[in-house]
Amino acid sequence: MSEAPRNKPHLRYAIVGSGALGGLYGGMLANHGAEVHFLINSGIEQIRRDGWKVESVLGNFHIPGSKLNLHADPASIPPCDVTIVGIKTTQNHLLPKLLAGATSGDGVVLCLQNGLHSEIDSVAVVGPDRVLGGCCFLCCNKLAPGHIRHIDYGRIVMGEFTDSSLPPAGVTPRLQEITDDLRSAGIDANATGDLWMARWRKLMWNIPFNGLSVALNASTKDLIENEYSYAIAEAIMREVKDAAAAFGRQLPTDSIEATLDHTRHMAPYDSSMRLDFLAGRPMELSAIFEAPLAAGKRAGAVMSRVEMLHRQLAFLQSTADR
Amino acid sequence: MSEAPRNKPHLRYAIVGSGALGGLYGGMLANHGAEVHFLINSGIEQIRRDGWKVESVLGNFHIPGSKLNLHADPASIPPCDVTIVGIKTTQNHLLPKLLAGATSGDGVVLCLQNGLHSEIDSVAVVGPDRVLGGCCFLCCNKLAPGHIRHIDYGRIVMGEFTDSSLPPAGVTPRLQEITDDLRSAGIDANATGDLWMARWRKLMWNIPFNGLSVALNASTKDLIENEYSYAIAEAIMREVKDAAAAFGRQLPTDSIEATLDHTRHMAPYDSSMRLDFLAGRPMELSAIFEAPLAAGKRAGAVMSRVEMLHRQLAFLQSTADR
Repeated sequence: MSEAPRNKPHLRYAIVGSGALGGLYGGMLANHGAEVHFLINSGIEQIRRDGWKVESVLGNFHIPGSKLNLHADPASIPPCDVTIVGIKTTQNHLLPKLLAGATSGDGVVLCLQNGLHSEIDSVAVVGPDRVLGGCCFLCCNKLAPGHIRHIDYGRIVMGEFTDSSLPPAGVTPRLQEITDDLRSAGIDANATGDLWMARWRKLMWNIPFNGLSVALNASTKDLIENEYSYAIAEAIMREVKDAAAAFGRQLPTDSIEATLDHTRHMAPYDSSMRLDFLAGRPMELSAIFEAPLAAGKRAGAVMSRVEMLHRQLAFLQSTADR
Repeated sequence: MSEAPRNKPHLRYAIVGSGALGGLYGGMLANHGAEVHFLINSGIEQIRRDGWKVESVLGNFHIPGSKLNLHADPASIPPCDVTIVGIKTTQNHLLPKLLAGATSGDGVVLCLQNGLHSEIDSVAVVGPDRVLGGCCFLCCNKLAPGHIRHIDYGRIVMGEFTDSSLPPAGVTPRLQEITDDLRSAGIDANATGDLWMARWRKLMWNIPFNGLSVALNASTKDLIENEYSYAIAEAIMREVKDAAAAFGRQLPTDSIEATLDHTRHMAPYDSSMRLDFLAGRPMELSAIFEAPLAAGKRAGAVMSRVEMLHRQLAFLQSTADR
C-alpha cells in the first residue's frame, strides 16, 4: 500500500529575517516547492553562489542559488500571502521598511518572535486584522549566510493576534489554512485558538531561563542542576503563572513542574538571550521582560522577582554598552 | 590653655583576628599604652622583626616588634578583660579554640563581626552574659602581616548582646567602661542601648551593596549611579526595613534615603563580600543573608528580593567552589 501523496504548500511566502528560524522554515517551504522570497541582510552574493544549505534533524537538504528568490531590498519583494517575521524584537523599529513590499497586497504577517505583545509592531504597519503570531520551540543556529544547522525541536504554536481585551479568537479558516500549508512542508505547525495563552506558557520558560542564564552567566543545565538557581527559577515561574492568571490565562496546574522537568532533560543549551549578550548584541528585554511586567501590572499582579531580574539584566546591558 | 591630659586605656585586650579591623583597633590600643595580645595566624616572624605599622587617616604610627605581645597559639594568651573578635564569620567554627586562653578568666567578648546574630557563636563558647557586639563602619585593608592601611571612617557602634525576645539591654556600666577605654585610644567607639537596632541598620546597607556588588560584578559607585541597580538596592532596603520592623526594630523613616545618599557620596569602594569573592574566599552569606532571612521569616516578614539575591550568591559561591 502506498501512502497518499502529500499536499504541497500552495501559498506565497516572504521571510523577513533569514536567520536561524526564518532560514530553517523558509528553507523547508522552498524545498517543498513553495514560492519563498527571502529578505537577505548580508551575504546575498555568497548565497547566490552557494545556495541554501540546511543540516537538520528532520533531514538535510540543499537548494541551488539559481532556484532561490533572494532580495536585498524589501521593496522588491512582491505581495505575499504570508510574511514570516523572524527578526529579533530589538530590530522591530525597522519593520515599516522591511514589510513594505511583502505586505503591499492583502496577505498576513506571521510574527514568530519572542516575548509578549511583539506582534504590536507588525500591527502598527499592516493594521490589526492581518497579524498572526506564533511561539517557536526550536534549537537552531545560522552558521553562515544561507547555512542553517537545526539541532532539535521545531514546533510552532500559532494563532490569531487579537487585543487582549477581546475573547480568544479561536482557530479561524485562514489560520487553519496557513497551518496546513506549513505542515505540508514538513513543519510541525500547530494552530491554537488562544495565542495569549501560548505566549504566557512560553514566557514561563523564557523569563527565568533566558534571564538567569545571563545574570548568573550559566547554561540551562547549570541552572536546573543547582539547588539555588532551581529555587529561583521555580519562584519566578510561579510569579509568571500568577500574572498570566491575573491577565485572564489560567495555565495548567502542572505547568511549572512539567516545564522544570522538561528543562531537566534538555541538552545543555545556551539561551538566545545569553548568546545575544555574549555576542554584544542587545538583549530582548522589552519583549521578554518589560511587556509581561507591564501586562502583569495592569492586571494587578506583583512580579517582584521578575522585576528584579529585569533590572539586573538592564544593568548588565547598560554597563556592557559603555 | 593646655588640654587636660587624656585618659589612657586601662583594660587588657586580646585581638582574635588580626586582620584589617583587629589590626587597626588593636594597633591603636597598643599605641596608646594598653596591654594588647594579638593572635597571629600567619607571618608572626615578620611582625616580630618589622613591628606593627599603621597608615591611617587618623595618623600613622609604628610599634617595634619587641613591644608587641604576639601569640601563634591562642592558649598562650592570658585572661583578658576584653577579647575583640575580628575574624570573618565564615571562620566562627574555630572560636572554641581561638577564645580558649583570652576568655579563661571572666572577661567579655566584643564581637565586631558582620551580619545578624553573629555573636551567637561566641555565646556558645563563653555563655550568654559575657558577649557584647559592635557594628564597624570602616574602610581598612591589611596589606601584609602587621601592616594596616586605614583609608576612611572608623566608627564602632557597640552594645550588649541579648536574646532578641528580651527588651533592649540599655547602656550597662561595663559597656560604658569599654567604650570609654576604646575612646581613650582614639577609637570612635559609641555605646548603644539596643544592639539589634544597630545590626538591622547596618544590614540595610550590607545586604544590597555587598550582595549586588558580587551578583552584578560592580563597585558601589557603579551600583549607586545606575538607575536599575539603584532601584534594586532601594527595593531591597525597603524589604530589610520592613523585616526589621516585624522583628521589633523600627528604623528611622528617612533611613533608606539617608543610606542611599551617604552611599552616593562614598569613595568608590569594593565591598568586603566582593573582595572575598574575587579572592576565592567564602562569602559571609550566613551572617549577612541567612540569619536576617531566618529572623525576618520568624517575624512574618517576606523578603523575596533578599531571598533571590541570596540564592544568586549561593549559586555563584557553589559554582566557584567546583
